[in-house]
Amino acid sequence: MTDALREEVIASDVVFSGRLLTLRVDQVRLPDGHLSTREVVVHPGAVAMVPLLDAEHVVLVRQWRTAAGRALLEIPAGTLSPGEDPAACAQRELMEEIGYRPRRLTPLFATFLAPGYSSEKLHVFLAEDLVPERLAHDDDERLEVVVLSWSEIDDLLVRGEFSDSKTFSALLLAQKVLQHR
Amino acid sequence: MTDALREEVIASDVVFSGRLLTLRVDQVRLPDGHLSTREVVVHPGAVAMVPLLDAEHVVLVRQWRTAAGRALLEIPAGTLSPGEDPAACAQRELMEEIGYRPRRLTPLFATFLAPGYSSEKLHVFLAEDLVPERLAHDDDERLEVVVLSWSEIDDLLVRGEFSDSKTFSALLLAQKVLQHR
Repeated sequence: MTDALREEVIASDVVFSGRLLTLRVDQVRLPDGHLSTREVVVHPGAVAMVPLLDAEHVVLVRQWRTAAGRALLEIPAGTLSPGEDPAACAQRELMEEIGYRPRRLTPLFATFLAPGYSSEKLHVFLAEDLVPERLAHDDDERLEVVVLSWSEIDDLLVRGEFSDSKTFSALLLAQKVLQHR
Repeated sequence: MTDALREEVIASDVVFSGRLLTLRVDQVRLPDGHLSTREVVVHPGAVAMVPLLDAEHVVLVRQWRTAAGRALLEIPAGTLSPGEDPAACAQRELMEEIGYRPRRLTPLFATFLAPGYSSEKLHVFLAEDLVPERLAHDDDERLEVVVLSWSEIDDLLVRGEFSDSKTFSALLLAQKVLQHR
């Protein structure tokens, strides 16, 4: 089935290369021979974690997002360094962002965030058995730590009041997985 | 609380302007006075729909994603035209992608997809009372329509087998909302 959909990249131009992102414009040949272009943001990938402080509480972070023009309430997350193991990155980011090291990390899912134009793949973990241990922040990252109960979270989910896709999907799936344990 | 996190944009350079995306590099002043840069993908926004064929079945689409390098199974979605009403866009995209017009559209949530670097906001709807009515496709869009039952979907969700964040979050939230009806 997939072969009937496959697009062949016949030329690829890097039009921007920055600190975080690279932007590529690909010329592609569609299955029926037609040509088109695709604008592709090349991203190193990222991790996000649902950190359980105890059976009833999850640790979230609020931070300013220039792209959104406002502060958002999100689960902790971070960008992979080149070649970095997602689980190692998840552990490091939790120590940096919320000051806890998880003794138990369970992969929940891996997903593209905006596959229409971004190569970013996100690896999502459930983080449990948290022990206090802090690593210094990235110098340009400012965060507020927010602890919410599952019933507060459920309320925000049903009312559609999170504004970040990874936070929605990770909290909903974590809830489902924990109910099935 | 938010003011303690606010970053002030003090300069903004457009470094690329394409068919779909614009890329901006912002210089920002952090709350403590430090300067940093933010790479921002400017995107017109999008819609995504959970179309219920009947109480037991959802209509999905499989399409090639150049940014992901493979075909992905997703809920139907589309990019907003400038100034377009999200509900009108949702209706148009369903007629184009799956050949149905929904007589009932319920907003589920609106969310940023990748707020670390993209301004894209996604408006997600539950689409019901589908009547057959087809509009011609975008010329460079090739899709396969896939109908799955909720029990098949639940299986894929729990095993983490979707590879697209909007599909994960929209299906999980639709499930939750439908259970509460």
